[in-house]
Amino acid sequence: MRKLSTQDADFEQQLTELLAFETVNDPQLLHTVDDIIAQVRQHGDEVVLHLTQQFDQHPAQSMSELEIAQEDLAKAFASLDDEVKAALSTAAERVSEFHKRQVQETWEYTDALGNRLGQKVTPLDRVGIYVPGGLASYPSSVLMNAIPAKVAGVKDVIMVVPAPKGVLNPLVLAAAHLAQVDRVFTIGGAQAVAALAYGTQSIPQVDKITGPGNKYVAAAKRAVFGQVGIDMIAGPSEVLVYAEGEAADRADWLAIDLLSQAEHDRIAQAIFVTTSAEQLADVETAIDAALAELPKADIARDALRHRGALILVKDRAEGLALINRIAPEHLELSVDTPDDLIDDIRHAGAIFMGRHTPEAIGDYCAGPNHVLPTSGTARFSSPLGVYDFQKKSSLIYCSEAGSKPLAKTADILAQREDLDAHARSARYRYES
Amino acid sequence: MRKLSTQDADFEQQLTELLAFETVNDPQLLHTVDDIIAQVRQHGDEVVLHLTQQFDQHPAQSMSELEIAQEDLAKAFASLDDEVKAALSTAAERVSEFHKRQVQETWEYTDALGNRLGQKVTPLDRVGIYVPGGLASYPSSVLMNAIPAKVAGVKDVIMVVPAPKGVLNPLVLAAAHLAQVDRVFTIGGAQAVAALAYGTQSIPQVDKITGPGNKYVAAAKRAVFGQVGIDMIAGPSEVLVYAEGEAADRADWLAIDLLSQAEHDRIAQAIFVTTSAEQLADVETAIDAALAELPKADIARDALRHRGALILVKDRAEGLALINRIAPEHLELSVDTPDDLIDDIRHAGAIFMGRHTPEAIGDYCAGPNHVLPTSGTARFSSPLGVYDFQKKSSLIYCSEAGSKPLAKTADILAQREDLDAHARSARYRYES
Repeated sequence: MRKLSTQDADFEQQLTELLAFETVNDPQLLHTVDDIIAQVRQHGDEVVLHLTQQFDQHPAQSMSELEIAQEDLAKAFASLDDEVKAALSTAAERVSEFHKRQVQETWEYTDALGNRLGQKVTPLDRVGIYVPGGLASYPSSVLMNAIPAKVAGVKDVIMVVPAPKGVLNPLVLAAAHLAQVDRVFTIGGAQAVAALAYGTQSIPQVDKITGPGNKYVAAAKRAVFGQVGIDMIAGPSEVLVYAEGEAADRADWLAIDLLSQAEHDRIAQAIFVTTSAEQLADVETAIDAALAELPKADIARDALRHRGALILVKDRAEGLALINRIAPEHLELSVDTPDDLIDDIRHAGAIFMGRHTPEAIGDYCAGPNHVLPTSGTARFSSPLGVYDFQKKSSLIYCSEAGSKPLAKTADILAQREDLDAHARSARYRYES
Repeated sequence: MRKLSTQDADFEQQLTELLAFETVNDPQLLHTVDDIIAQVRQHGDEVVLHLTQQFDQHPAQSMSELEIAQEDLAKAFASLDDEVKAALSTAAERVSEFHKRQVQETWEYTDALGNRLGQKVTPLDRVGIYVPGGLASYPSSVLMNAIPAKVAGVKDVIMVVPAPKGVLNPLVLAAAHLAQVDRVFTIGGAQAVAALAYGTQSIPQVDKITGPGNKYVAAAKRAVFGQVGIDMIAGPSEVLVYAEGEAADRADWLAIDLLSQAEHDRIAQAIFVTTSAEQLADVETAIDAALAELPKADIARDALRHRGALILVKDRAEGLALINRIAPEHLELSVDTPDDLIDDIRHAGAIFMGRHTPEAIGDYCAGPNHVLPTSGTARFSSPLGVYDFQKKSSLIYCSEAGSKPLAKTADILAQREDLDAHARSARYRYES
């Protein structure tokens, strides 16, 4: 595992290499995705079925076999053992509770001239949520995508999830039931994104597509952006754990938190930043010890080797600068008083404060969303939220008297922009 | 100008044709844009200067000549005549006043277990605003892009505006001064977007790019999305004016409002929808009369011929359905009691209510933003706003006691997702 220090002469270059990751820049992949989208637009169901048979080895012989009935979702939930049923329900409730606080309301005010101005908030009509299949088919992802949409008031939530060889995690279906997903199709890849964006005979056209996926899904989302809304282009998952070698830190806890990121996949990124050289060494040792017991040690080891790092910083100021530079998806602050750091942290998807808040709690049931901006995009984007499923329309209602001074101002500016019809349209109002 | 009625047998098909518009689907254009971006990434300033000389026929011989000094912005403002200075200042003040109400604040609550959960709101560090040059170089666009960024608290607002042959509208510079833009570069096209997204020796790298542009700009924004944030992919501007033939309607007002959209460019879209066949005919006549006096009649005539329409609907219900189907960028409700319609309007960028609220007032000085979702994207997106320049980080701070039940839930779910390190990471917290 890479060990860096901000004191290294080539630290800047090493950091740049560590963080380098570009999604979707392979021309061959882009071409394949564009082609799939064009085919789905033209031929609809037929192509979606064919590609699902081909890529997912799905045994379905007709599109109708690719839809899961509501009663099957309910059955999947009913058949869970009580412990899991309770855990999933707790998670759903907490996610719902947190997201309700994100709901935006319509507002309006009247200005000094007597004109009414405001912002009307409306849910989207219909959204598609992409849930990865195979290895990473997570019931928690269903909750994290569908619940904010439902809290926003979206009437139709259409879920797609690929089912390789026709096999699906029943917990994914149970979660869809719990989150009140309206329809579920077992399709995935660029073909699922295209089907949602343009609609087919069987699959309804949606207004926005959210949720992470592999590089084909990411490329397809970028390609259909504009036709529909999308949440973000997801890259590999990352965590940055920050500590200062305080007495209360435990190396085994820090190690397992880093590994809980690294076990996701071979390109996941786990970075440990500390002000203490001794703690850095301890955590390295603890990681090795923990790896020995980890079922997914092979994946985690690969991820740590290629994209992991242990970074020594001089002091808290350097640590904070590094955090803001990296803008991590997940940030754990393993310090006695994390509140002291918060004001100086400008960029992070989610901030896990203190030693009793491991990322794993946030992944499942703390309440905030686990779909978060990756690859430094926390510089400009936010966790998935209710705001992704609501949109705004401006409201402007001028009174006859209140309109006149504004019309005069508009007339003057329109003339300077050489827009004569604009100017006249304004003039009609104040000359009337 | 096209005349349609919902009673026409082929109405659905005609409507689809009317609304058909796809931005950026020309492979040649995409290739050109990708190539420009790659060149700018690799060679920086040198390529930006070269392309600006080539595409804009700009006489600059060095990059430094492509930056406008702050004192030149101040001079441009100072040299305006008083009437224009006052109009621009009124507009800026009203835009600022409206947008202040969009500011989102950090919030936090403590759950029943004693865990703190919240959402931290942070402004973006640095943004780029694209202001079209040439024909459509509008001071109002500077205000509408820069003011929300400044209200959000963005420290560095970098403006780019192409200056064909080195010529710039001095009002654009004056507006940049008024809106407290931090730096202005006279560059445009895909090269300006690439320079902002990746940075060059002279041009600072930004976190997000907003503002409309031509098809090259739109394609470049799509291509750099992910590297930086973008607001939306802008299409041609549109208005839908709705009326019901009430006595207070004036055909000349309705006509000039439609023309104020049509004069923008040859692909602008102006649609009139009415429940009254008589009014439809009156408005058609009034358009012809107004065109005779319009300096930009040639552009407006072209726009109306190719993309305009007068549509007769049976009743208000049909009118509302049509509005929601079209999801217009600008919607004017020329009716006695527009409040009666608002609840049923789900999709529109901005809604201009009543007869004294022409779009022109909103374009300049009502307060709400004039950068609005086009081409039906109001189904899923919002006017440009302060929320485009702020982003959120989730906050999770579990107490030692409050962490335990959540850790237990996370453990159960992580085991079902086969994520052993997640499960252990959670278990460490509740077994401690």
